[in-house]
Amino acid sequence: MAGLPAATTAAELAEACRGRLVGDGTVVVEGVRSLETAGPRDLSFAADGKAEGPAAASAAGVLLVRSAREFPGRTVIEVPSPSTALAVLLAHAFPRRSARAGTHPTAIVDPEAQVAPGAEVGPYAVVGVGSVVEDGAILEAHTVVGRRCRIGCGAWLHPHVVLYDDVSVGPRAEVHSGAVLGADGFGYAPGPAGLLKIPQVGSVEVGADAEIGANTCVDRATLETTRVGDGTKIDDLVMIGHNCDVGRHVVLCGQVGLAGSTTVGDQAVLGGQTGTIGHVRIGKGARVGGQTGVSSDIPDGGTSFGTPHMPHRQTLRVNAELKRLPETARLVRDLAKAAGRTEMASPAEKAGMTERTTEFASEVKR
Amino acid sequence: MAGLPAATTAAELAEACRGRLVGDGTVVVEGVRSLETAGPRDLSFAADGKAEGPAAASAAGVLLVRSAREFPGRTVIEVPSPSTALAVLLAHAFPRRSARAGTHPTAIVDPEAQVAPGAEVGPYAVVGVGSVVEDGAILEAHTVVGRRCRIGCGAWLHPHVVLYDDVSVGPRAEVHSGAVLGADGFGYAPGPAGLLKIPQVGSVEVGADAEIGANTCVDRATLETTRVGDGTKIDDLVMIGHNCDVGRHVVLCGQVGLAGSTTVGDQAVLGGQTGTIGHVRIGKGARVGGQTGVSSDIPDGGTSFGTPHMPHRQTLRVNAELKRLPETARLVRDLAKAAGRTEMASPAEKAGMTERTTEFASEVKR
Amino acid sequence: MAGLPAATTAAELAEACRGRLVGDGTVVVEGVRSLETAGPRDLSFAADGKAEGPAAASAAGVLLVRSAREFPGRTVIEVPSPSTALAVLLAHAFPRRSARAGTHPTAIVDPEAQVAPGAEVGPYAVVGVGSVVEDGAILEAHTVVGRRCRIGCGAWLHPHVVLYDDVSVGPRAEVHSGAVLGADGFGYAPGPAGLLKIPQVGSVEVGADAEIGANTCVDRATLETTRVGDGTKIDDLVMIGHNCDVGRHVVLCGQVGLAGSTTVGDQAVLGGQTGTIGHVRIGKGARVGGQTGVSSDIPDGGTSFGTPHMPHRQTLRVNAELKRLPETARLVRDLAKAAGRTEMASPAEKAGMTERTTEFASEVKR
Repeated sequence: MAGLPAATTAAELAEACRGRLVGDGTVVVEGVRSLETAGPRDLSFAADGKAEGPAAASAAGVLLVRSAREFPGRTVIEVPSPSTALAVLLAHAFPRRSARAGTHPTAIVDPEAQVAPGAEVGPYAVVGVGSVVEDGAILEAHTVVGRRCRIGCGAWLHPHVVLYDDVSVGPRAEVHSGAVLGADGFGYAPGPAGLLKIPQVGSVEVGADAEIGANTCVDRATLETTRVGDGTKIDDLVMIGHNCDVGRHVVLCGQVGLAGSTTVGDQAVLGGQTGTIGHVRIGKGARVGGQTGVSSDIPDGGTSFGTPHMPHRQTLRVNAELKRLPETARLVRDLAKAAGRTEMASPAEKAGMTERTTEFASEVKR
Repeated sequence: MAGLPAATTAAELAEACRGRLVGDGTVVVEGVRSLETAGPRDLSFAADGKAEGPAAASAAGVLLVRSAREFPGRTVIEVPSPSTALAVLLAHAFPRRSARAGTHPTAIVDPEAQVAPGAEVGPYAVVGVGSVVEDGAILEAHTVVGRRCRIGCGAWLHPHVVLYDDVSVGPRAEVHSGAVLGADGFGYAPGPAGLLKIPQVGSVEVGADAEIGANTCVDRATLETTRVGDGTKIDDLVMIGHNCDVGRHVVLCGQVGLAGSTTVGDQAVLGGQTGTIGHVRIGKGARVGGQTGVSSDIPDGGTSFGTPHMPHRQTLRVNAELKRLPETARLVRDLAKAAGRTEMASPAEKAGMTERTTEFASEVKR
Repeated sequence: MAGLPAATTAAELAEACRGRLVGDGTVVVEGVRSLETAGPRDLSFAADGKAEGPAAASAAGVLLVRSAREFPGRTVIEVPSPSTALAVLLAHAFPRRSARAGTHPTAIVDPEAQVAPGAEVGPYAVVGVGSVVEDGAILEAHTVVGRRCRIGCGAWLHPHVVLYDDVSVGPRAEVHSGAVLGADGFGYAPGPAGLLKIPQVGSVEVGADAEIGANTCVDRATLETTRVGDGTKIDDLVMIGHNCDVGRHVVLCGQVGLAGSTTVGDQAVLGGQTGTIGHVRIGKGARVGGQTGVSSDIPDGGTSFGTPHMPHRQTLRVNAELKRLPETARLVRDLAKAAGRTEMASPAEKAGMTERTTEFASEVKR
């Protein structure tokens, strides 16, 4: 439950998000809650058409909706996008915190680093030689910033973020705890006694207004720059290999893995746990489903899903047939038998079901 | 090799785990080892039926087994569950460490935080305003606890754990190094200039006796609470999205990813690398195989495996047929040809094998 | 762009990597760049045959190539492996940093730990009782080393690495930020009130010259030792479960997950996001494709790819047929109909396309 810092009215909220108030504008709102838990003094929202039923059933005093017509007799705020309005209202009630200017006495800032007067450097933070921390930037407790880094105006590094040398983070970007930017890319060559490390001497650049999730890794380039574009949002535990070029306003969901030199066009969306092989190009605005194995280029505006990856609709068709593959195969065997062909007479079910299929990474004994 | 802190006898061990001793109770035991490495002064165990052959061949002086009858002439301890007995004996010999009461002089505890006298706060730990650390809790080196958090009695945060604001960890829960609890959920809405962040103003609650693996991330809810229930065990590198409700005594194996608002019922088990799309419900006691893509609800007690996910036995049948799909398809083509149908005359093997299939995330040159 | 610390000539570079210079040895080289960005004063390289076209089109002043014949009129350095030569030249120009001997005044080293005089212990590092840090080892800022650990000569722990008790890291091994070595393995047994933890009292051993990626987790063994062999390279966000035995010169790409007791033979290569179930053996020199689900043993020198996993070529054939499964199934239905069989008359496309297929782990509203 998110209790609002100060009570407000439906009318004030409508104004704050530029919505059209329908109903009683004097209703007092003290909190913002989900449809299931909201009460008469709470605001809630119907994110999309599917939520309109639950919204009608909700006890919420005020609702953010797309059309007041669906909610006769209720106090609602009509907006083109309830999600956007929610974002605006929450940002109004819970603004992002500002830097508390100053460097904590326990922080270790190299004398040859530059920290702007309006920046905040927290307890036990370490900032290396030649790095620049711009105005309004926040380095929380235990952040480690290497040498020759740049932290842009108003950027926010959460506790325990690590930047290796030569990493830049754009203005207002937010990097969550445990993220590691600029660790060595994974590059080796055959050597006389095993693998020889190819020194990774490039850098990482994260754009303005980007957000990088907890424990995500963005590796430094071999020679040039691994890039994350302006406004791009990256979830937790994502891995971005060396030399990748991730465009602007891209969305990478949790646990995505981009192999080296992957290019992702602006505004593309990759579902969770999707992986790419190296050197592929995902086009602008492409949409890739979860757990997809991207093994070849995807055109601008294209869709991709599954392994082997195919356009989304094709994978839906394949998956539907896949589910009844045993029946289809049995029918094939029957037809073959009727035609006097006898190969593959036994169902694979018996012939091949020796596969072990317990849990991956599981050692639970029950 | 786990050398026991003090030598003991087979009889004493049998008593400690309430087992039935068969054989020589005076055998001295100095260590607990795997079947392969155990010697005459070691205890080992046969976790299940498959291990009974190796157990019989093992040189272990004492064996934990389900039935002494399978081990004539050996000194064994008969117990209903060898794994459980092993857990009991190891916990007896290697008890979980207790808090060393006190706050390290380098820890930074906000004056308005409350740390119980019996709690341990380690070197360089940081505890924010309004947080409560209860008796017997352990905050190891470099832990960072935000504002208004609660660390229950006897809970244990390993080095480098980060808690954002408003996170509670239940009594005796254990959180491993690098885990991040309460980072922002991944929620955005369309804005005038790219994606607009939906502030994540909810919280995270981890239940009593839960265990959370290294570098795992549990994101804070948008408005309400992301929950991990009592007794639930979560492996390393797992991601739990915002608003998830993970029940009690659930098992999530390594690298599982739960998208936002996933519900997992009590005692469910999810295999490693499994992912869910948002807003699905996995029923109580359900069992989900490794790498499954859970794209729809799973009933209580149900099984699920594969992508597209199906009941476990169905996926086994499909996978078995899948392996001989090329042969099945060739047979179909032969039948079609015999029937005067000529479409798809060429094997897909030739027509479609342009797929690149090298390693994901690999830049190794060999 | 990697600007070389000092300008050099093509002839000097050829000598440094023992290559054969063809063309103008006096060309001055100031940087090493990718083929696309290199100019007349840069060195670049054609890693393999596919890169030879782009290399010919590149403006690079000097090229590392396999055969000078393909580059008439250009200044090239002919070497058997351009990648290896690149590794050698970069290592020459950007040598790995050496330890700056000494312990930072803020580091907390237990009086009963031994730190060699030539080792470097950085700011806020914590080293526990009984641990040994050998000569030339580097412990960067905020590393935490537990009790009874051993950090070999010249090993390098990057900022925020955590070692639990009893972990050893071999000579010259490199462990990247956020990696956690020795956290508890994931082992439980049925107890009277839910799952009972099986204490994990074993250890972790990482071999000489190994490299472990950012935020990777290697869990301690239940009783014995989880091993990572000499020269093995592990990428970011990999999870290695308890009791695993990973051989020498193995390559594990990003986000691989090895369940407990997995054995990986020397020189095997596992593609990104691949998972294994417990207790399987991957043979020496085996090659496993990305996202594979390894559910049974793979022989020495074998290949494996896909889920269900099969030899690589078989998966290619299956995937090619899979893509046209809907057409094959339609043909089967037509043949069945012609033969007077009417089951499964409707395409699965209509019958089964209720599967939800949006993004995993995605809560983005667009």
